[in-house]
Amino acid sequence: MLEKANSVNKALEDAVSLRDPLKIHESMRYSLLAGGKRVRPMLCIAACELVGGDESTAMPAACAVEMIHTMSLMHDDLPCMDNDDLRRGKPTNHKIYGEDVAVLAGDALLAFSFEHIAIATKGVSSERIVRVIGELAKCIGSEGLVAGQVVDICSEGMTEVGLDHLEFIHLHKTAALLEGSVVLGAILGGANDEEVEKLRKFARNIGLLFQVVDDILDVTKSSQELGKTAGKDLVADKTTYPKLLGIEKSRDFAEKLNREAQEQLVGFDSVRAAPLIALANYIAYRDN
Amino acid sequence: MLEKANSVNKALEDAVSLRDPLKIHESMRYSLLAGGKRVRPMLCIAACELVGGDESTAMPAACAVEMIHTMSLMHDDLPCMDNDDLRRGKPTNHKIYGEDVAVLAGDALLAFSFEHIAIATKGVSSERIVRVIGELAKCIGSEGLVAGQVVDICSEGMTEVGLDHLEFIHLHKTAALLEGSVVLGAILGGANDEEVEKLRKFARNIGLLFQVVDDILDVTKSSQELGKTAGKDLVADKTTYPKLLGIEKSRDFAEKLNREAQEQLVGFDSVRAAPLIALANYIAYRDN
Repeated sequence: MLEKANSVNKALEDAVSLRDPLKIHESMRYSLLAGGKRVRPMLCIAACELVGGDESTAMPAACAVEMIHTMSLMHDDLPCMDNDDLRRGKPTNHKIYGEDVAVLAGDALLAFSFEHIAIATKGVSSERIVRVIGELAKCIGSEGLVAGQVVDICSEGMTEVGLDHLEFIHLHKTAALLEGSVVLGAILGGANDEEVEKLRKFARNIGLLFQVVDDILDVTKSSQELGKTAGKDLVADKTTYPKLLGIEKSRDFAEKLNREAQEQLVGFDSVRAAPLIALANYIAYRDN
Repeated sequence: MLEKANSVNKALEDAVSLRDPLKIHESMRYSLLAGGKRVRPMLCIAACELVGGDESTAMPAACAVEMIHTMSLMHDDLPCMDNDDLRRGKPTNHKIYGEDVAVLAGDALLAFSFEHIAIATKGVSSERIVRVIGELAKCIGSEGLVAGQVVDICSEGMTEVGLDHLEFIHLHKTAALLEGSVVLGAILGGANDEEVEKLRKFARNIGLLFQVVDDILDVTKSSQELGKTAGKDLVADKTTYPKLLGIEKSRDFAEKLNREAQEQLVGFDSVRAAPLIALANYIAYRDN
């Protein structure tokens, strides 16, 4: 998996090279190459390989989903949004390059993700590329990531946030792009419709799982263990799974999501499914 | 031309319908349906029809370029950018919906423009759609619109801005999306490579023309005539064509750009070229 992450890092580095105008490309590269875990690209590549495709076929789309993830963090960190000064232990993009450049660099990454898929994807039909672009766009916009963010913003200060409402936020804010990552890889690898839908369900489950585990870690781990401030949700009086369900039931829910995710992989080649199972277990059992 | 603008307005209204989450779609529609002149969509449709395509073939791309234009204005108006309170005589998006929602609504429009082209374009090959998506993305990102904006931002307070530098800004900030609008329409309409390049040159010229005329109007017209504050460039001590060349030479330059633009249309069917000529003359001889 480390090897895959390194291939992705190399591909990202090449895709967004340092060129004129320097400032915007420096800003884009600062956040894009800041050393994330590359979970989304790895899901994209693993889904492509699961259905018989090559890593190289999925790589432009794998880079694209990481560009989208990065731009969503850059815009999310802005003073008018979460107003975060630190991300992965480094100053946030706008702290270094200014808010104006951080907004524009996010916009540029968003546009470039589509350009990169359109220009750099080789060896598959244009029909598939168009379908992939439609899927990626949908999981970003007002029915995807942005929908989750805006409902999250509107929920601040609401006294009663129910389980359905919380699930809507996380299915959009977190799961949509994980779903997109897997579905893009599957389509590029040549999955049939039934396989795409199984993998979509797999991805939605691990997307929700990702968030449930995040909520649990926030209340059970120390800041030192997490590498970021623990207990933030409690301080912000944020609605979380532990708050609504308690820790034990949240853990049960996480188990159920992981189990149901992995059930979707039954019927696929078990050797090829191993990386997706490993990624699901990594998301379920991580410590930070 | 009014009829075409009405078709575009209807198509935009349908493309971004009011649905859940309400707030984000209200914000997107507020700016998208605020009654722009729809110059970019009209260029897209006119270019498509010039080479023998139908209005309906170009309409999703025509809507997409207007979505991009709108999102660029929304982000440009933000407090961290130009900090504008008014746009087309109405409060800017962030004044109504908040900065956070204005950032997200811009992101959603950007993503949706690609989704709309991928999903709604009918009757042309997927190869053309992929090519169109690559062209659109390129004219938005760090080699297009965003490049122009970031160089513009970095030029503020510079004492010596030369003609080349000014031209770089406007070729990217203004001309790139006008070029994209024309090129998208041409590709969708079935233009061959030579025709695409002629129309690209036409569009770059009228893009620059657009900005030269803007600069001239700012110093020669009253606020009442313009419907917006006149003399803003002088007050901001901004580098403009009249400042670098004087009014007369700026007018000569505008004439030259319009003439060279229209020369690119020689050899095309003259009846079908009439709308593009009318749009070029409109840009050259407008009063506001």
